[in-house]
Amino acid sequence: MSQQFARRMSTVHRSFIREILKVTADPEIISFAGGLPNPELFPVPAMDKAAHEVFANIGATALQYSTTEGDAGLRAIIAERYAKRGLTVDPDTILVTTGSQQILDLGGKIFLDRGDKVVIERPGYLGAIQAFSLFEPEFVTVSLDDDGPNLEELEAAFKAGAKCFYAVPNFQNPSGVSYSLEKRKGVAALCDRYGVLFLEDDPYGELRFLGEDLPSVFSFCKTKGLLCGSFSKIAAPGFRIGWVVAPQKDIYDKLVIAKQAADLHTSTVAQAIMRRYLETNDIEAHVALIRERYGRQRECMVEMIGKYFPEGVTITRPEGGMFLWVTMPDGCSSMELLDMAVRDKVAFVPGRPFYVDGSGENTLRLNFSNSDEARIEEGIKRLGRSIQSFLK
Amino acid sequence: MSQQFARRMSTVHRSFIREILKVTADPEIISFAGGLPNPELFPVPAMDKAAHEVFANIGATALQYSTTEGDAGLRAIIAERYAKRGLTVDPDTILVTTGSQQILDLGGKIFLDRGDKVVIERPGYLGAIQAFSLFEPEFVTVSLDDDGPNLEELEAAFKAGAKCFYAVPNFQNPSGVSYSLEKRKGVAALCDRYGVLFLEDDPYGELRFLGEDLPSVFSFCKTKGLLCGSFSKIAAPGFRIGWVVAPQKDIYDKLVIAKQAADLHTSTVAQAIMRRYLETNDIEAHVALIRERYGRQRECMVEMIGKYFPEGVTITRPEGGMFLWVTMPDGCSSMELLDMAVRDKVAFVPGRPFYVDGSGENTLRLNFSNSDEARIEEGIKRLGRSIQSFLK
Repeated sequence: MSQQFARRMSTVHRSFIREILKVTADPEIISFAGGLPNPELFPVPAMDKAAHEVFANIGATALQYSTTEGDAGLRAIIAERYAKRGLTVDPDTILVTTGSQQILDLGGKIFLDRGDKVVIERPGYLGAIQAFSLFEPEFVTVSLDDDGPNLEELEAAFKAGAKCFYAVPNFQNPSGVSYSLEKRKGVAALCDRYGVLFLEDDPYGELRFLGEDLPSVFSFCKTKGLLCGSFSKIAAPGFRIGWVVAPQKDIYDKLVIAKQAADLHTSTVAQAIMRRYLETNDIEAHVALIRERYGRQRECMVEMIGKYFPEGVTITRPEGGMFLWVTMPDGCSSMELLDMAVRDKVAFVPGRPFYVDGSGENTLRLNFSNSDEARIEEGIKRLGRSIQSFLK
Repeated sequence: MSQQFARRMSTVHRSFIREILKVTADPEIISFAGGLPNPELFPVPAMDKAAHEVFANIGATALQYSTTEGDAGLRAIIAERYAKRGLTVDPDTILVTTGSQQILDLGGKIFLDRGDKVVIERPGYLGAIQAFSLFEPEFVTVSLDDDGPNLEELEAAFKAGAKCFYAVPNFQNPSGVSYSLEKRKGVAALCDRYGVLFLEDDPYGELRFLGEDLPSVFSFCKTKGLLCGSFSKIAAPGFRIGWVVAPQKDIYDKLVIAKQAADLHTSTVAQAIMRRYLETNDIEAHVALIRERYGRQRECMVEMIGKYFPEGVTITRPEGGMFLWVTMPDGCSSMELLDMAVRDKVAFVPGRPFYVDGSGENTLRLNFSNSDEARIEEGIKRLGRSIQSFLK
């Protein structure tokens, strides 16, 4: 008999971040490790009301099986919200997914044969690395400059025969980096020229607290592009509702087939409550509130880092999102730093898991969305102390 | 550049059933095609109340990200309900999934390499065929007798080197067949002897309206078994909450890894509402109500078939579940019959999609859970008329 597990399972592991989160469940630890939205901002009473209205008005429908494509009214709202931001999207090209994480699984399934080349950013989003790994591609990485990917490296990767470029152009997880307008156009032009699918993941795009909104890379792609979105960061992640815009009908149809096989459809109840919430509340005002709060938290973190971190440690200065990225001098290990930091009751995510090539040893990710300013000040002070004694 | 889609996508198609459901959306059509629970029985006010209590008591927690394994309280309730039916299950071996469909995807992912042999029943559950197909196994089928699979065929399949046997031993979809106690023990013994993983799918097991409950095949497996369950048929499918019991730790861990990559976790909100519903309502009384109603509907369908179907057409006599299975004389095509039936405003699912070998032309599936007795009488009358004129 063949071995018990499929070959694809030999290269994937539990999320290192999720394992760290277990260690940092201790309430005394100030954790910058997770990637959680601030729960104080969840619209609990509004969701309570929306849920009641769903059960009172369309209870049996909300509890029944539904279509794989997703709630038509919800898809219409998603399209309207894109329209407000200048992007025309046909609701029939939107597929509702069980969180935007699911798109990475579905995309991997429909596009990736073993050994296909997938280009990702360096550092890259861990959830994507995990999801794609199950389809055994070859990862090719391009370095992220302050304004986006290095286009020479990207073109070289495309020339060598890439199938897909996966990227998070707005306030990337983990680095906090955003693409400049020039880089957006440049990436789209390269994808068009080399026939590479562009898979744009945009969970944080609406959380900009500095600078100006920029068009998606997807909007510049003339051939093959997919744009993923999510309600997790602008409303609440507990619903597990994301979506993908797939204008190419053959791609859309294949995504639907893969989704049917994966979970039939996303929770009808969850979609109905989210739709009702969006129909009866001002989500734009709510997002403005989140932006304002995260902006303050980010400002506080940058300020405290300036005060407590030693010379030689550099950081990104994100204009939105939930994360910033720390680079220590060469030769420092953030894995070793973590042990010391946890003893001092502060946590973060070491950078190495975000690098498929095993580099990134001297980097780490800090989350600023899930801590108030008092905890940020105290946490950065503790972390600065750890780094100080570590660098000695 | 390599071709656009992965090779695995070349062998899978949209669910034929879901396509039929679109045709039969016409409210004048009496449809026995779907596999829907009766929405009149959904506990809408109880879910409304449970949802309100969740938002009022643990709103922010219910809206946040949560663990991949699933809500601990919900898993404890699932284990307690198994205990009432005589099966001891450790809650830590339960993984909550996005419907039990997701287990088929996760199972395929962790176990199946291309060309691995998967044994399924003939006819077999279409959702499993679809989910497994994406991992390109070789399907081997065993015929279903009235009391379960043919054990000689099963042993021959195992001898030839099978990795997994996927089965629905209670009121199978599509056939309505249930395994006898002897067959259950026989299947488990063969799985143990040949080291074949037994994947037991049991969404209907609690919906028995005739005969006596029998232990799961899983309970007789001494080595490798997985038991899948679902709240879709006993509470409501719109939540998309299923689960798998995986007592072997290495298998459980691999399932968790695959689930993380697939959708991080099942909707926290949906799990919280379902848990609260279960904590504050008598689900056993509710299930008794469903059993009573479906039993009457099944009895009515069998009676009307006796009255309106011509000689030479045989049916299964399910003791539970939602489906019965019709076999017409050899040479009759249920695909052709469907055209005639839809013109006469009645629908069903032709049997062929349930056969991976392209046989089953003369068979069809009827659903009795989603039509009241008046519609069953009228629908079977129409269908009998179609079959009569078809057999002439």
